[in-house]
Amino acid sequence: MALRYPKPLEDLVRELSRLPGIGGKTAQRLAFHILSMEDSQAGALADSIRRAKSEMKYCPVCGNLTDREPCAICADESRDRTQICVVEQAGDVIAIERMKEYKGLYHVLHGAISPMDGIGPEDIALKELIVRLQDSEVEEVILATNPTIEGEATAMYAARLIKPSGIKVSRIAHGIPVGGDLEYTDEVTLARALDGRREL
Amino acid sequence: MALRYPKPLEDLVRELSRLPGIGGKTAQRLAFHILSMEDSQAGALADSIRRAKSEMKYCPVCGNLTDREPCAICADESRDRTQICVVEQAGDVIAIERMKEYKGLYHVLHGAISPMDGIGPEDIALKELIVRLQDSEVEEVILATNPTIEGEATAMYAARLIKPSGIKVSRIAHGIPVGGDLEYTDEVTLARALDGRREL
Repeated sequence: MALRYPKPLEDLVRELSRLPGIGGKTAQRLAFHILSMEDSQAGALADSIRRAKSEMKYCPVCGNLTDREPCAICADESRDRTQICVVEQAGDVIAIERMKEYKGLYHVLHGAISPMDGIGPEDIALKELIVRLQDSEVEEVILATNPTIEGEATAMYAARLIKPSGIKVSRIAHGIPVGGDLEYTDEVTLARALDGRREL
Repeated sequence: MALRYPKPLEDLVRELSRLPGIGGKTAQRLAFHILSMEDSQAGALADSIRRAKSEMKYCPVCGNLTDREPCAICADESRDRTQICVVEQAGDVIAIERMKEYKGLYHVLHGAISPMDGIGPEDIALKELIVRLQDSEVEEVILATNPTIEGEATAMYAARLIKPSGIKVSRIAHGIPVGGDLEYTDEVTLARALDGRREL
């Protein structure tokens, strides 16, 4: 019997299907597309994977993804060094940066406390945060971990660690998303929205 | 202002978002996943793209994607050399092979006649098919182009080219898909299903 795919194609489909959200059919479609691409384009794709993987590292100061040390945000003298926004993942930094509102620094934890998954406080970059806060000009730590059980637990834990130092600790607001509908908002979010109400 | 992405990450996101069905958000998610992969895994992905692109070629006999010449199907002595199944794309060969029913050979046209897109009979591998049929042991050509306007036009055209040689020409059946529902079948398919009825 003939092979279903020749080896190089089979390898490509298998590697592609390891990516999140890419099933067998999609991997096959992508593989055929890649084979139909110009050599230079396919080469650029392969190169960009290799280069990103070899050149991108975590900033030794804040843990953000960067191609230089320290990262562009940590190195930017115009940023407000009195604020640190604590997030779970490097992707969260990009989401906040896209908003173009926040001018402070970041700290990426690379995870959240999750006893169910065996992830304790020592497994994320919390110690690095505490060390960083010593002898720094930081006046406020904004905890922007996700509004999940793990994110909340992490925020609570971090707040307890930081407070003794006298630095202000805040948590981003949870509530009804802009454009959202009160009727379809889940109770937990609604309770948070009420709880976090502000005087006008 | 800080860069939204460092250059290597930006390049990776851009290259990924060129793939079909991969939008900006998905490309970003894939890029972050690739950055979080083991070096060896990311390397394997990049390598598989390069290798597939350099080692996969079209079979000089049937036009199927292959890593050897002729392809595994053309080289397989156990296959029925009296039948050639004509398809539009190399991916169609895999779809038919997966069925494990067909034992003949293939011919990949690499497209279909589409005057609207400026694709004429000379732009697809029809001439190669005719040349191949001369002095061959082929007794039947099965036209398995897609049931689209282009696929039908291509099948009609190919049939007219082949018939003078006395070789039997057939077209795969169109009808209601197995598991399909008569009520929800479009009229054209239904008409084809009636037209193609068989005595039991």
